[in-house]
Amino acid sequence: MTGVPPTRIAQPKLEHFIRSVFVAAGLRDDLAADVAEVLIEADMMGHATHGVALVPMYLKSLESGGMAKDGEIEVLADMGACATWTCHRLPGATVLKRAMDLAIERAKTFGCSTVSITDSYHMGALAVYLVQATQQGMMAVLSSSTLSSNGVAPFGGTVGVMTPNPIAAGIPTSGDPILLDISASITTRNKSLQYAAAGQRFPGQWALDVDGNPSDDPNALLDGGTLLPIGGLDHGHKGYALGLMVEALTQGFSGIGRNDEQTGTYTTGFLQVFDPRAFAGKDAFTRTTDHLVKLCQNNHPRAGVDKVRVPGENALARRRAALKNGVDLSGQIMQGLAAAAEQTGVKLPDPVVQRLCDI
Amino acid sequence: MTGVPPTRIAQPKLEHFIRSVFVAAGLRDDLAADVAEVLIEADMMGHATHGVALVPMYLKSLESGGMAKDGEIEVLADMGACATWTCHRLPGATVLKRAMDLAIERAKTFGCSTVSITDSYHMGALAVYLVQATQQGMMAVLSSSTLSSNGVAPFGGTVGVMTPNPIAAGIPTSGDPILLDISASITTRNKSLQYAAAGQRFPGQWALDVDGNPSDDPNALLDGGTLLPIGGLDHGHKGYALGLMVEALTQGFSGIGRNDEQTGTYTTGFLQVFDPRAFAGKDAFTRTTDHLVKLCQNNHPRAGVDKVRVPGENALARRRAALKNGVDLSGQIMQGLAAAAEQTGVKLPDPVVQRLCDI
Repeated sequence: MTGVPPTRIAQPKLEHFIRSVFVAAGLRDDLAADVAEVLIEADMMGHATHGVALVPMYLKSLESGGMAKDGEIEVLADMGACATWTCHRLPGATVLKRAMDLAIERAKTFGCSTVSITDSYHMGALAVYLVQATQQGMMAVLSSSTLSSNGVAPFGGTVGVMTPNPIAAGIPTSGDPILLDISASITTRNKSLQYAAAGQRFPGQWALDVDGNPSDDPNALLDGGTLLPIGGLDHGHKGYALGLMVEALTQGFSGIGRNDEQTGTYTTGFLQVFDPRAFAGKDAFTRTTDHLVKLCQNNHPRAGVDKVRVPGENALARRRAALKNGVDLSGQIMQGLAAAAEQTGVKLPDPVVQRLCDI
Repeated sequence: MTGVPPTRIAQPKLEHFIRSVFVAAGLRDDLAADVAEVLIEADMMGHATHGVALVPMYLKSLESGGMAKDGEIEVLADMGACATWTCHRLPGATVLKRAMDLAIERAKTFGCSTVSITDSYHMGALAVYLVQATQQGMMAVLSSSTLSSNGVAPFGGTVGVMTPNPIAAGIPTSGDPILLDISASITTRNKSLQYAAAGQRFPGQWALDVDGNPSDDPNALLDGGTLLPIGGLDHGHKGYALGLMVEALTQGFSGIGRNDEQTGTYTTGFLQVFDPRAFAGKDAFTRTTDHLVKLCQNNHPRAGVDKVRVPGENALARRRAALKNGVDLSGQIMQGLAAAAEQTGVKLPDPVVQRLCDI
């Protein structure tokens, strides 16, 4: 890196910039707005690997046709409670925001609704989309898999078959929602690249090298190795099973799987939204989840842990701070944005002025 | 153990015996038939901890009122695609077999159907129920949690909050289905008891002792410790997140959670059945899952692994062998059955005669 300093930018200015960059690169304006919003949400929630760091990759995909510049979602099937979409490589941000809108509406009628998605471009951080549902008192469950990538081997095997296959869920309470977003593998390709770039080893045996030997070297993946499923060598049959479930939910229902050769970032998705009003009621639901959160947050922590947290707690606190104070971006990310600004002729936004005292 | 030998019993004779024992103990005949069928299925699939080994516990629960002797399921809500049941401590075998029947029927209309269950008695091995759906080309997802038990602490904490919270799924292919059944904790209380009884340590740091120190001692759990979520100390935030999701799915929708004090084996459940015909079609689904199974089963195994298997593969092979040759029961399990026979006055079935040559 050639010395670009980390920078803090106000969220509206950053959003205007990212949107303008994509419009300048040919993406339809409403799609560009979705992408900008979703990428910046990921940064604000602390998922920097899935935030505006992806702008250079997205721009390349626009050039190559891996992400569509415009187009419409095509409905392949619609049973009311369940819909199946093929999305012609539209940005995952647009696909999932619209799927969430539909699923929320349909859940009001059917109690639970499902949207099965194929041929989407990259979806980013799944956790970002969940709040759309939890704000209306609904629970959302969301998974994805990418057909063109296969860094995770089945437990006991050495040849990559699956992607990390995330499962995300938004669980409403009467306060902040629980927002979970986990992959079925211990780590992901992006995180491995970060470890490798920082010259660090994994904290444990998180990968297998190309010969199937357990390894804590993040470069193992780049050299033909594979990522271990959750549980690793000790109990990785559990992560393997979860990964298979996500493959079936995302690819099986949408009908396009690893038997269909795909190029670029070809993503399949599975979304469900549940309205607790259709079951024992919204109050009973949040009374239950409120109590669960309390049992966890008030739990006696073990040595070295300051406080037990529920998933999403840190992310939502970070998001509030970022909305108030601006979005923090590393020097490496700023370098990518500077290149995008140069490529598209869009001016980089001014950083937040850091006042040393109140005026 | 006082030297009861392991025994092999033909499935129909064993089923008749178990059913008769429960009828003699006062359980209504149709409920006894469900319990016998489901417990023996677990033994045949190799889940001996959830098989007829549970007969003594079930008999005690019948005496104490923890399991109801008769009664009916009460429908609390029914939106068509989603139903909510309270089950007045009926056996989980009956509850889940009926829930599966309803969900399969409803999935034909709505594409996906959901049954939310509260106040069930023990459900046993969830994997057993899945075949009801996969035989009709449908995918089933099933979870449970038990309110009266809490051996799993949140990640970073030391006080038990949750049960192991299993997630099971049956995924149809054109051949055998994939049947997965994993808990959100590394191991379960029953498995810990087995390790302790055998004088063995866990293969890894699977528990925390009462002070929050990692431990491979199965007795830690009995001494006030807790079971670690999947991923353990290394990446247990993932198992913790899964456990929270199952708590919300099972307790949140059914409306009875850990804020409601419960005694005995009070189990909540969450069942979904999906009909691929409502999405991209049954053929597209099984074409996808067939290919996935092939990629796994043909995978090059790592050193020490003879063959990569998909979840359920061994269980279904064992089941076929047991149906043909009889159900193998350990001396310890036979001792429990002998006690049940004595208690109820039902005669123990004859073992399979092991012929040394064809007649």
